Amino acid sequence: MPSINDHFFAIARAQSDYARCIDDDRLEEWPSFFEEACLYRITSAASHRDGYEASVVFANSRGMLTDRISALREANIYERQAYRHLLGMPALLGQAANGLRTETSFMVARIMQDGTTDLYATGRYLDIWNTKGETPKIVERIVVCDSSRFDTLLAIPL
Amino acid sequence: MPSINDHFFAIARAQSDYARCIDDDRLEEWPSFFEEACLYRITSAASHRDGYEASVVFANSRGMLTDRISALREANIYERQAYRHLLGMPALLGQAANGLRTETSFMVARIMQDGTTDLYATGRYLDIWNTKGETPKIVERIVVCDSSRFDTLLAIPL
Amino acid sequence: MPSINDHFFAIARAQSDYARCIDDDRLEEWPSFFEEACLYRITSAASHRDGYEASVVFANSRGMLTDRISALREANIYERQAYRHLLGMPALLGQAANGLRTETSFMVARIMQDGTTDLYATGRYLDIWNTKGETPKIVERIVVCDSSRFDTLLAIPL
Repeated sequence: MPSINDHFFAIARAQSDYARCIDDDRLEEWPSFFEEACLYRITSAASHRDGYEASVVFANSRGMLTDRISALREANIYERQAYRHLLGMPALLGQAANGLRTETSFMVARIMQDGTTDLYATGRYLDIWNTKGETPKIVERIVVCDSSRFDTLLAIPL
Repeated sequence: MPSINDHFFAIARAQSDYARCIDDDRLEEWPSFFEEACLYRITSAASHRDGYEASVVFANSRGMLTDRISALREANIYERQAYRHLLGMPALLGQAANGLRTETSFMVARIMQDGTTDLYATGRYLDIWNTKGETPKIVERIVVCDSSRFDTLLAIPL
Repeated sequence: MPSINDHFFAIARAQSDYARCIDDDRLEEWPSFFEEACLYRITSAASHRDGYEASVVFANSRGMLTDRISALREANIYERQAYRHLLGMPALLGQAANGLRTETSFMVARIMQDGTTDLYATGRYLDIWNTKGETPKIVERIVVCDSSRFDTLLAIPL
């Protein structure tokens, strides 16, 4: 039986792979980090604190995540920005009914076509992981952005 | 007997909890990361390099840390900024008389009320940890900021 | 025989020491992280993606790295900026003929003499490590910067 430390490493590795998948622009692989039935939301710290369920982005199946990427590729609304995620160590918050609950801080830098780099987003992932399989899969990911200012670029997954 | 790797993980976890405590604005819990008799200083890399003992912030007991938070809450001098800490891996530097010496790099982003995000502070924690209890406690933390430019917002613990 | 996890920790530690060496301005120690026969290149994500071998910085021996630091110290072209590296978790990508292949994300903040702090560079290290000795040594490091805009300050090792 895997120990809590094994879970910790497997999740830390999955987080790191998730970030590289986006940073490498391999967005088509992004949905594979989620369970078929999953919840993915992007919200702000202010909304989250006030208990609002409203999300800037919402999906409740892997299929919706796939559709999101297809739409993004077709629209091509983002012009060659690149992103770089840096993640903190996942904090294990305990077992939920449907998996292991963790919280992970993130900073995301955005690199514009002209080379300008800025701090695009900061926040934390509130996650529930299914740790039963070989690789942990995301059952629920609530992306709580510290800032309430979102722009259209949020089409990019966080 | 716990191995050096156990200490490493316990300290990495404590560091991560410390950062989340501040980022979640649970400042009242912040002193609990320290020993009753402790040293907490914020200084700049230039002062530290030159051997100056002068500090921007200084406290030598957990009580002083608690007072600091009370004063901060009453003054309410900071207007709803939020912070996001990202930490490097702690480097174990060896055993001191009063605990285990570590160094940990940090970046702190600040998120203003209007959503603007900037890189607020970078630097390193020079720490001594008491690793005898269940959770490592800070005996000494010297926060060495890379920049010498401090503003009043330094009321916020780093 | 060391396990893959042992390698992971040894490499994570070496990465962290590498970053501290630069951030502490102990540049003379920097070449010691490399094998005598090594490859060190700095390039951009765009060049790397297009398969160009052109590099902003190129060295293929530890001696060249040492020369680089000597030149840097003599020229003193950089005026007391400081740097702060923050690294992601190394991803183990598999065994190459000459060592263990890893990828590690980085963000580097630059702190100017006047205290201004900005996000100087982001990207990833594509590395091959010799893990046979006590401490892993870099056989090959390709620093792939996300931005294509380089300034003269790139004299500083990344």
